[in-house]
Amino acid sequence: MSDPLPQAPRSTTHVRVRYAETDAAGVVYHANYLVWLEVARIELLRDIGHPVTAVEARGVVLPVVDVRVKYLRPAHLDDLVEVALWVDALGPATFSFKYEISRDGLLLATAWTRHAVCDRTTGRVMRVPGWFRELFAGELAGAAS
Amino acid sequence: MSDPLPQAPRSTTHVRVRYAETDAAGVVYHANYLVWLEVARIELLRDIGHPVTAVEARGVVLPVVDVRVKYLRPAHLDDLVEVALWVDALGPATFSFKYEISRDGLLLATAWTRHAVCDRTTGRVMRVPGWFRELFAGELAGAAS
Amino acid sequence: MSDPLPQAPRSTTHVRVRYAETDAAGVVYHANYLVWLEVARIELLRDIGHPVTAVEARGVVLPVVDVRVKYLRPAHLDDLVEVALWVDALGPATFSFKYEISRDGLLLATAWTRHAVCDRTTGRVMRVPGWFRELFAGELAGAAS
Amino acid sequence: MSDPLPQAPRSTTHVRVRYAETDAAGVVYHANYLVWLEVARIELLRDIGHPVTAVEARGVVLPVVDVRVKYLRPAHLDDLVEVALWVDALGPATFSFKYEISRDGLLLATAWTRHAVCDRTTGRVMRVPGWFRELFAGELAGAAS
Repeated sequence: MSDPLPQAPRSTTHVRVRYAETDAAGVVYHANYLVWLEVARIELLRDIGHPVTAVEARGVVLPVVDVRVKYLRPAHLDDLVEVALWVDALGPATFSFKYEISRDGLLLATAWTRHAVCDRTTGRVMRVPGWFRELFAGELAGAAS
Repeated sequence: MSDPLPQAPRSTTHVRVRYAETDAAGVVYHANYLVWLEVARIELLRDIGHPVTAVEARGVVLPVVDVRVKYLRPAHLDDLVEVALWVDALGPATFSFKYEISRDGLLLATAWTRHAVCDRTTGRVMRVPGWFRELFAGELAGAAS
Repeated sequence: MSDPLPQAPRSTTHVRVRYAETDAAGVVYHANYLVWLEVARIELLRDIGHPVTAVEARGVVLPVVDVRVKYLRPAHLDDLVEVALWVDALGPATFSFKYEISRDGLLLATAWTRHAVCDRTTGRVMRVPGWFRELFAGELAGAAS
Repeated sequence: MSDPLPQAPRSTTHVRVRYAETDAAGVVYHANYLVWLEVARIELLRDIGHPVTAVEARGVVLPVVDVRVKYLRPAHLDDLVEVALWVDALGPATFSFKYEISRDGLLLATAWTRHAVCDRTTGRVMRVPGWFRELFAGELAGAAS
């Protein structure tokens, strides 16, 4: 989980911490960060013109096959949390994102997810389709520059 | 939400309170009681020989169409909670359950749910099928006696 | 759960359906509507100048003691759902809200919650404090007109 | 995430997949595996005579500071899932567990969590207390043999 390249294109999404997301230790329950990562991915898809429902209508699902989260500082009820993400790698059958979760510029957690591309009906792993690869071409070009 | 008839057949299920189910007020978040009600319904189906997956394999889903929960006392992390339920009514297109949620004999909440019977593929409301009605015949006979 | 008075002041909040909120029936899991009701209450508190953290800093929590939800139509992944709420009643020790959950003007569910006012430290039920009552005075005046 | 030593002492816990844990792709939502890991840790604490509430009564919380999960195969509604865990490392201020999540002997996921030991009141990181270290001494002795 190296630092993002400063020039990497980033997408940012904000989530407001819900009561349901906190736990008896008075902070956000750690599993809920994974939900926020997904919220951020879905907003990224929307931003680039491919809402998740459109992706699924093409018969494709993008399950998480590997996830890592490092928790640095807790988040609390009603915090406005920012989730920044950027494409980390795009392989023949998988792709990955990196994330920074922060509040008021203070880093709360870093994360990384790797995804497969699967046929929605059969569940079988597919090659990353061309149309999907093109979605992120600009992002990766930026990341590589 | 009248009191259960003492002779009504009841099914009881136990759930251990998870950290994820608590909130920053130090108690179980109220929405999670609905999850426990469902756990208890699914255990009831298993007990009477019809696991939920078998019910769904018949093309039927049983969505909650109406729910009420009265919260009397809080539940806490690691509590062993008992959920008792019994059939309340069985109509032509809907049926309902009543519930008591308790810990060590102390009543924490009462609840009631009403369910439709829907075709899993179309989502359309169906009449309660005969085989489903028979599942609860014994329960209702007991309840009515 | 009578219809709202057309002139009742309403607060509306939007939530985007998350993947985590859906279930294997392909729709939003019913317990998650309760989470949305809370999101809407907390936004109402913020709108009237009393963020939930400020309310809690006064040593007060507002637990749900009674909830009812009627589900009319399912919600789906990525739907933009509107939650409208308004004050239903304000008693000496409890108060209640009514809600309408809709998507594109189509009513998905109606709901009602009743809340106690409790001392955050002791958990004891309190009378509704004057400063809290005044928060909703305008709302109730509108509702009663 | 190397393979467990065959002789490592393991604790196993079973969880039944809940409807609330599934998502619209028809499988268990990936964030919920983290909840199961915590269920397994809490059962391990109970097994060795220190229920989580007793640990917290000593003024100690054990937050997850780092987590990794690799998802190999999906879990489905009503599956009976086994979570096996064992102590991976015990440092001066942190400790870690490894996990295998399986169903009917088929491995569904592997996971690893690292935990800090924090003062419950201040949130400050503490050294792992002696009494806590002793809890796992037998486990680690077994792991090292």
